[in-house]
Amino acid sequence: MSIENNYAVLMAGGIGSRFWPMSRTQKPKQFLDILGLGKSLIQLTFERLKRFTPAENIYIVTNEDYIELVKEQLPELLDSQILSEPVRRNTAPCVAYAAYKIHQKNPNANLVVAPSDHLILKEEEFERCILKAINVANEQKALVTLGINPSRPDTGYGYIQASDVIADSDEDFYKVKTFTEKPTLEIAKTFLESGDFSWNSGIFIWTSATIIEAFQKYLPEMHELFAQGEDKYYTDQESEFIKETYSVCTNISIDYGIMEKSKEVYVMSCDFGWSDLGTWGSLYDHLDHDDAGNAVVGKNVMMYDSKDNIVHVPKEKLVVLQGLNNYIVVESNNTLLVCRKDDEQKIKQFVTDIKIEKDEKFV
Amino acid sequence: MSIENNYAVLMAGGIGSRFWPMSRTQKPKQFLDILGLGKSLIQLTFERLKRFTPAENIYIVTNEDYIELVKEQLPELLDSQILSEPVRRNTAPCVAYAAYKIHQKNPNANLVVAPSDHLILKEEEFERCILKAINVANEQKALVTLGINPSRPDTGYGYIQASDVIADSDEDFYKVKTFTEKPTLEIAKTFLESGDFSWNSGIFIWTSATIIEAFQKYLPEMHELFAQGEDKYYTDQESEFIKETYSVCTNISIDYGIMEKSKEVYVMSCDFGWSDLGTWGSLYDHLDHDDAGNAVVGKNVMMYDSKDNIVHVPKEKLVVLQGLNNYIVVESNNTLLVCRKDDEQKIKQFVTDIKIEKDEKFV
Repeated sequence: MSIENNYAVLMAGGIGSRFWPMSRTQKPKQFLDILGLGKSLIQLTFERLKRFTPAENIYIVTNEDYIELVKEQLPELLDSQILSEPVRRNTAPCVAYAAYKIHQKNPNANLVVAPSDHLILKEEEFERCILKAINVANEQKALVTLGINPSRPDTGYGYIQASDVIADSDEDFYKVKTFTEKPTLEIAKTFLESGDFSWNSGIFIWTSATIIEAFQKYLPEMHELFAQGEDKYYTDQESEFIKETYSVCTNISIDYGIMEKSKEVYVMSCDFGWSDLGTWGSLYDHLDHDDAGNAVVGKNVMMYDSKDNIVHVPKEKLVVLQGLNNYIVVESNNTLLVCRKDDEQKIKQFVTDIKIEKDEKFV
Repeated sequence: MSIENNYAVLMAGGIGSRFWPMSRTQKPKQFLDILGLGKSLIQLTFERLKRFTPAENIYIVTNEDYIELVKEQLPELLDSQILSEPVRRNTAPCVAYAAYKIHQKNPNANLVVAPSDHLILKEEEFERCILKAINVANEQKALVTLGINPSRPDTGYGYIQASDVIADSDEDFYKVKTFTEKPTLEIAKTFLESGDFSWNSGIFIWTSATIIEAFQKYLPEMHELFAQGEDKYYTDQESEFIKETYSVCTNISIDYGIMEKSKEVYVMSCDFGWSDLGTWGSLYDHLDHDDAGNAVVGKNVMMYDSKDNIVHVPKEKLVVLQGLNNYIVVESNNTLLVCRKDDEQKIKQFVTDIKIEKDEKFV
C-alpha cells in the first residue's frame, strides 16, 4: 500500500476543562506541554503520525480561536491543512469537513482520524495497529475503530463490545456489536470479565470513499451540505462556505451519527500504552514516580514528608511541599490548584464556580 | 513632658527567615505587607510611633543593604535619620550608635528602642504604656523594658521576672529580677503560674543620658568607641567613622551586655495586643478567620473542604484549595510553600536546604 494515500485528521478543538488550571479556554490541553517533555500534546501526536503519513497529508481540525496556536506549534503545515471550525458542532461535522475536502484531492485517501491530546507510549505498536487497520478499511470497505485492551473497570471511558464475527482480511479485527458510554462500576466490571469489551480510543480508520458513503446513508443531510463544497475546498471560498455550512449543520457525534448505526464497523483491541490523559490522576499514572510515589513535572520542587502527589509547575518556580499525601498541586497561568487526587472530579465544579464568582479570564 | 524630646529608634536589620518564602534576605519581613493591609510592618510601626514622636525624631538602624528599601518605604525620613550598619553586630552596637548620635543633638532625649516588625493591635494602650515608661525612665534614671502579659506558656519568647520592688514614680513598674531566654514548656508553665513573669517584647525606654551611662559602666570599650564620634555624627565623616567603629566593635546583644547586668531595670507588664509575628502560625492567630477557621491574605482564594489554614498569596493570584486542613500556603517571589502548620519550625531547615541544593536567589 502506498504511503502517499495515508492521511491523518487530528481533532484539536476541545477545551480540556478537567486539566484546569493548566488547560484554559484560551490555550487548552492539546497545546500544552502536559508531560514536561518540551513539546505539546499536539506536537507529539503530529510526530507520531508522521511515522506513516506524509506531513503534507496531516490535517488539523480546530476551532477558529486556535488557528494561530496551531500555526505556531506546527509551522510546517500549510494553511490548507488547517481546518477552521467557526462554531463547535461535535465530531460528525468535523469528520465530514476533513473527509470531503481530502477526498476531493485524493479519492483513494486512507484517513486516520484521531484526537490530538492523547498519550501513546508504544509508538511502533501504534504504527503496526494503524497499518493493519488501514488494510482492513480498504479490503472490507470497513469503518475501523481501535479499541484499547482494558486494564481496569474504568468508569470514565466508553466501551466497545466485539461480536464473534472476524474480518476476512485480518483475524485480529471483529465486527462491533455495541458501543456503551461511561458505564457504572458494576457494569464496567462485568464488561472486563466477559472479555468482549475494549475501551473506545476515539481513533478511527477508514477510506474517504467509505466514510462518505456512510454519511450519505446515515447522515444524508450532512452529506448534502459538505458535498456541495466540491468546488470550494482549497479555494478562497472555502472559509465562507464552511461558515454557512456549519451554521445549518446538525450538532452530532460521529459515534452516535454513524458508528452506532453502521453494520460495517470493525474493532481491534490494541495495547500501545494509551491514555486519554483525561484527568490529573490519569497523567499521574503515566509519569515517572520517585521513591515516595511522587510524580513531578518541574525543575525546582522540594518535598518533605510527602508521598503519592502529582506536582506540575513551571520549571523556574521553586516549590516546597511538606506533609502532603495524595494531592494534585498545579501552578499555571498565575493560578494555583491544590486538590486531593481522590477528589479530582470536583475540578469541573471549581471551574464553574470561578466563572461565576471570579472572572472568565481564569477559565 | 515635652514631646520634642521623644525619639524612637527602630531596629530594622533582621532577615526574618522563619517567614520564608515571603521574607527574603533581599527584602525581609519588616519591609513586607505581611498583614495584607497595603502597608509594610515598618510603615505601620513608623505610623504608630508618630503618635507620640515627631517624625523627624524617628531613627531607623538597618543594614546598609536595606537603606534603599527604607528610603522607598519611609520617604519622609532625612538621610541623617537612617543609620546604616556596615556589618551585623547584634543589638548593643545598634543601640549605642543611635543613642550617642541622638544624644549629641539633644542631651535631653527620651529614647524608645523598638523592633520594626512586630504587631501591636491596641495603639492607644501602647501609647499610654510608652508615655508612662518615659516618665519612669526620667524620674528614676531607669532602663525600662515593656513586658507582655503572657497568655500561654510560649516557648518561643524570652521571659522577664519582676521582683517585688515597685518604682517610686509609678506603681505599675517593678524592678526586674531575671531575664530568661526561650524556656522549656515545663519551665514556661511554672513561669505562668507564678504570675511574676512577662514576655520580653524587645521594646526599651530610657533617656539617652541613662543608656550612655550604662554603656560606660557595663560596656566601657563600646562606650569609648561611640563617644569618639562626637564630632562625626551628622557630618560627612559619620559613615567612615561607623565603618571603622563597627569593624572593631564587640558582637553582643543589649539584653546580655546591659539589661541583665544593670540593677536599674524596670518592667511593666502590658497588654496592647502584641505579637512578634515570629512565624506563620503567630500571624495566623492575629488575622481574621472565616467560619472554617481559614485566615486568608489574598483576593482570589477559593477554598473547598478546607479548614484552619493560613493562606498568604498575591492579590492577583487565583488560588483554589481543596481538602487541606491546618496548612500554611504561601506564594511569594515566584516560590510556593505548602507546609503543615504544626511543622512550621521546619521552614528554617527548608531554607538551609534550598541554599545548598538550589540557589541563593531563592533565599
